[in-house]
Amino acid sequence: MVPRKRINEIVKDYDPEDITIATLCSHTSLQLFNGAKKEGFKTLGLAVNQKTRFYDAFPLSKPDEFMRFDSYDDFVDRASELTDRNVIIIPHGSFVEYMGTKRFEAMEVPTFGNRSVLRWEEDRDIQRSWLESAGIQMPKRIADAKDIKEPVLVKYNGAKGGRGFFIAKDYMEFKMGIDLSQESYTIQEYVLGTRYYLHYFYSPIRKSGYRVGEGALELLSMDRRDESNIDELYKLGSTEELKKHGMFPSLVVTGNIPIVIRESLLSQVLEMGENVIQKSYELFGGLIGPFCLETIVTDKLEFKVFEISCRIVAGTNPYISGSPYSDMIQPGMSTGQRIAKEIKDARDMNMLDYVLS
Amino acid sequence: MVPRKRINEIVKDYDPEDITIATLCSHTSLQLFNGAKKEGFKTLGLAVNQKTRFYDAFPLSKPDEFMRFDSYDDFVDRASELTDRNVIIIPHGSFVEYMGTKRFEAMEVPTFGNRSVLRWEEDRDIQRSWLESAGIQMPKRIADAKDIKEPVLVKYNGAKGGRGFFIAKDYMEFKMGIDLSQESYTIQEYVLGTRYYLHYFYSPIRKSGYRVGEGALELLSMDRRDESNIDELYKLGSTEELKKHGMFPSLVVTGNIPIVIRESLLSQVLEMGENVIQKSYELFGGLIGPFCLETIVTDKLEFKVFEISCRIVAGTNPYISGSPYSDMIQPGMSTGQRIAKEIKDARDMNMLDYVLS
Amino acid sequence: MVPRKRINEIVKDYDPEDITIATLCSHTSLQLFNGAKKEGFKTLGLAVNQKTRFYDAFPLSKPDEFMRFDSYDDFVDRASELTDRNVIIIPHGSFVEYMGTKRFEAMEVPTFGNRSVLRWEEDRDIQRSWLESAGIQMPKRIADAKDIKEPVLVKYNGAKGGRGFFIAKDYMEFKMGIDLSQESYTIQEYVLGTRYYLHYFYSPIRKSGYRVGEGALELLSMDRRDESNIDELYKLGSTEELKKHGMFPSLVVTGNIPIVIRESLLSQVLEMGENVIQKSYELFGGLIGPFCLETIVTDKLEFKVFEISCRIVAGTNPYISGSPYSDMIQPGMSTGQRIAKEIKDARDMNMLDYVLS
Repeated sequence: MVPRKRINEIVKDYDPEDITIATLCSHTSLQLFNGAKKEGFKTLGLAVNQKTRFYDAFPLSKPDEFMRFDSYDDFVDRASELTDRNVIIIPHGSFVEYMGTKRFEAMEVPTFGNRSVLRWEEDRDIQRSWLESAGIQMPKRIADAKDIKEPVLVKYNGAKGGRGFFIAKDYMEFKMGIDLSQESYTIQEYVLGTRYYLHYFYSPIRKSGYRVGEGALELLSMDRRDESNIDELYKLGSTEELKKHGMFPSLVVTGNIPIVIRESLLSQVLEMGENVIQKSYELFGGLIGPFCLETIVTDKLEFKVFEISCRIVAGTNPYISGSPYSDMIQPGMSTGQRIAKEIKDARDMNMLDYVLS
Repeated sequence: MVPRKRINEIVKDYDPEDITIATLCSHTSLQLFNGAKKEGFKTLGLAVNQKTRFYDAFPLSKPDEFMRFDSYDDFVDRASELTDRNVIIIPHGSFVEYMGTKRFEAMEVPTFGNRSVLRWEEDRDIQRSWLESAGIQMPKRIADAKDIKEPVLVKYNGAKGGRGFFIAKDYMEFKMGIDLSQESYTIQEYVLGTRYYLHYFYSPIRKSGYRVGEGALELLSMDRRDESNIDELYKLGSTEELKKHGMFPSLVVTGNIPIVIRESLLSQVLEMGENVIQKSYELFGGLIGPFCLETIVTDKLEFKVFEISCRIVAGTNPYISGSPYSDMIQPGMSTGQRIAKEIKDARDMNMLDYVLS
Repeated sequence: MVPRKRINEIVKDYDPEDITIATLCSHTSLQLFNGAKKEGFKTLGLAVNQKTRFYDAFPLSKPDEFMRFDSYDDFVDRASELTDRNVIIIPHGSFVEYMGTKRFEAMEVPTFGNRSVLRWEEDRDIQRSWLESAGIQMPKRIADAKDIKEPVLVKYNGAKGGRGFFIAKDYMEFKMGIDLSQESYTIQEYVLGTRYYLHYFYSPIRKSGYRVGEGALELLSMDRRDESNIDELYKLGSTEELKKHGMFPSLVVTGNIPIVIRESLLSQVLEMGENVIQKSYELFGGLIGPFCLETIVTDKLEFKVFEISCRIVAGTNPYISGSPYSDMIQPGMSTGQRIAKEIKDARDMNMLDYVLS
C-alpha cells in the first residue's frame, strides 16, 4: 500500500485552487460528478472500457474531460498524469472491484477516504470481527450443517454477483439442495425481516452535529436494493414450486428504491454507525467519508447487519437532489455533493491530509 | 376531557407572537420540528424516556430546547410549565399511544386538532360506524366462523403491533389456525389488492381550494407502509410452506415507501375524505388537520378502507421536502410544515380556537 | 388521418403568443397542466365525462378553463372551437384509449407528437416488428402450446385492463389452465426479472445533448408500476395454492413507485431508445416527444422489452418536481414541463411543424 506520507507529499504540491475530482465512469459517477460540479470543482471521467456517451444525456453530470486507459495496469502506470492535474480520486464499489484491492491500494494518487479500510472489508471473517467487536448484531454463522435448526442461506465460496447460493429451511432441505461438486460454502442464519441500506457519512473534520471522535457522523439517506430475479419471483409461483421446475432465486442488484425508516429506530441507526467508526479508529486509523450498513429489521424491531460497504453505494443514486434525511442537514445535498463539500472544507481548513490517503 | 372553553381561555393569554410548537420526541417529530422552524416558530422537544441525541444529526429538525419528564403522569402534572411558554402541542400516533387516551384528553395544554376524535378512533366498532355512515367501504366483518367463504384475517383482541393475527383462506384453514386459548377474536374479509395510505389535511379556516363545509380539504401525499416480516417473507417460501416450519407472517411497521396513485382515482380519494369530514362534524364537532385513510385498491379499482388515523402518520416522513401532491399546492411543503402554517394562519386570522382543543 | 399539411395550415393561423395547452382531464393531466403553467402557457381542461372538481385540491395544476363535451363524437365535431383558441392538444394513454385511434387520428386539432405512431403501436404484431427490427429483445412468442418448455404468459385476445391472462410453468399447467371457450390467445415467454418502465423524450429540434438523428434523446425518469392484485398477492399464499381456491393474479395498474436503475445499464437504456427512434424515422416519419419502454431486467442484466407506449405514461406522475434523472438535465423538470418547454422552444425557433401533427 502506498504510504500515507507519500500521498501527503503529493497533495502538498497540489494547487489547492485547481483541484480536479475524478472517478471511474460507472456505479455512482453521475452523482459524484454532479456533486463535484455543484461545489465548483473541475471533473475528470476515467474510462478503462466504460462507454461514456451516456453522459451526453445528463449535462449537469457530464465530467469536463475524459481520460481513457487500455487496462487497469495502464491506469496505475499513468498515475503521474493524474497527479499533474491535481486529481483527487473518489472510489466507488465498481472502481475497487474492477481494479482489484492490491492495485487500488498501490495507486500513487490521492484518494478520498482511508484506503486501509479495504483489508478490513474484503475478507468476510475480518469484516465480521470488526463489526461484531463494535457491538453490531450479524446473522449467525453455522459451522456444521447438522446444526441447522432454522432457515439458512448457504453461499458457495467464490460465488459472485448474486448467484451461487441457496436457501434452506431445515437440514433436510440443506441436504437436498447442496451441490457436492462445489469446493466450499458458508452457512448463515436467514434473517426474516425488511431490508434497509443505511447511507452514513463520517467527517473527521466537522466540529458540529452528531459528534463522534474528533469529527461528526451524518445519516444522508437510505434505500432498498432491487434484486433480480428474487424481487418479482413470487408472481410466477412459490420458491418451493419453482425449484421443482429448475428455477432458483438470484440476488443480482438491478436498481434502488427510496425508503425511510421508522423514526424511533434512528437512535439505534446512529449508534450503530458511531460504534463502527470508533472501532475503525482503534483498528486501522478510521473509516472516513461515506459508508453503508446493509441491514434487516426483524419484526421485533432489531437490526441485523449482513454487510458493510466502506464507500459510496449505488443506493444513494435516487437522491441526487437530496433525501428526506439530508434535507434536514442541507437541502438538496446528495452523498456525491457531500463528498465534494468535505474536500472543499478540508482544503479551506488546510486539512486535506485528514480526508485523503 | 378538558373542556374546549378551558383551552380557549389558556390560548387567550398566549402571546401570539411568541408561540412554541412542541411534540413528543418520536414518530414524526423530525418533520414536525422541521416544518415549525420553516414557518418561524420556536420549537420544544418533549422527552419522557425518548433518546434525543439523534437530533444532533439533523440540525434543521432539532428543536430549540428539550423538556424532560419522569413519566407521562409527570407530564400531565407539569402542564402549566408548557402553557407558561405559550406551547401548542402537535399530537402524533406514538404520543397518543404512549400517553393513553384518557391522559391525552385531560391534558390542560392547547393541542392542534380536535381531541374529541380520540373516542371515535380508539374503539374499532365506533370507528366503523363513523366511516360506514360516511359511505366508506370497509372489509366485511364475519360474525360466525362457519360463514367463512372467502379469505379472512383473524385478529385476536388485545393483540398489539402487528402480531396476533392469522390469515385463513377458508373455514378449514380457520379451524386449523385458531388458537383456542385466546379469549376472543374478530374475523374480517381479507381484501386482495394494493395498499395506499392517503394523507389528507382538513383546514376549517381555509376559504379556497377543494371546499368542504366551512373550510377546505387537501391531499398532501401518500405512501405504502413497509411491514416486517410479511413484505419480504415470500423470498423464503410460500406462507403455506413456512407455516409448516412454524413461521408466520407479522405486520410490524418498519418504514415507508413513496408512491402515487392512478390519477383517475383522485376524485374518489377526495370524495372519501370529504364524506369523512362532513360526518365528523355531525358526530363530534369535526376532524381538524391531518388524517389518513388506510386503503386497499382492488383489481376492480374499488377502495376498501381498513382504518383511519386522525392525526399525522409516519407515512408522511418520506415527504419532508414536499410530495408529488403537495408540490401542486405549495412546492416543498411537508405535512409538518402544513400544520405549522395552519397555526400561523389561524393566529394571523385570530381564529386559533378553530384549530386547537 | 388528418394530413400533416392541414395541421400546418391551422398552426400557421395561430397567434404564437397566445397558445393554449389542452388535454383530457385524466391520466397525467395534473402534471401536464402543471408543466404548461410553469412554462407560461394558458391551459384548458377537456372533459367528456370526467369529473373536474378534484383540480380544486391542486391549484398549481388546475387548468385556467374547462370545456365540456357530451361524447367523443361531440369532441371531434367541435374541433374548430379548439383551433379558435389556438389549442395544442397533448395526448396521453387514456385520451387515445377513450377516443379510439380512428377518431384521434381524424381530429383536426394540432396535437403534440406524430400521430402516425398510433398504427405502429396499436397492433401487437406491427409493434413487435418495429421494435425487433430496431434490435430490441422482446419476450419470445410461442406459436404452438406443445412447444412450451419454460414459463409462459397466456393472454386471451381482446382481454382488457390486466385481466384475461394466466401464467403456466409448463405444458401441463397450460392444459389445466386454458379456457377452451375463449376464441383465441397468444403465448409468450414469461421473463423472470425486475421491471423498469423507462421514460424517454425525443426532441427533433434540440441540437445538444445525446444526439440522435437531427435531434436529441433524453431519459427523464423511470418507475415501477404497481399492479392489483398481483403485487400483494403473495401475502395470502402462493399462486399455486390460491389457484385451488379460485383466486387468480390480475395486473390492473393502480399506481407507480419511483425507482432508479444500476448506472452501468444506462448506456444500454439510451442505446435502446436511440434504436427505436431511428427505426421510427425509417418507418413512419419519427416518434416525437415522450415515450416509454416497459422492460424486465433479468439476472444476467439483459433487457427484455414487453411493450412501448408512444406518449407520456402515468409512471411519470411521481416526478412532478423532477426526478433523479431529469435533475441532471434541468432541476425540477417533469415530463409534463418538458413537453411544454418543447412547444415553447419550437415556437420560438419557428419550428412548430416539427413537433406537431
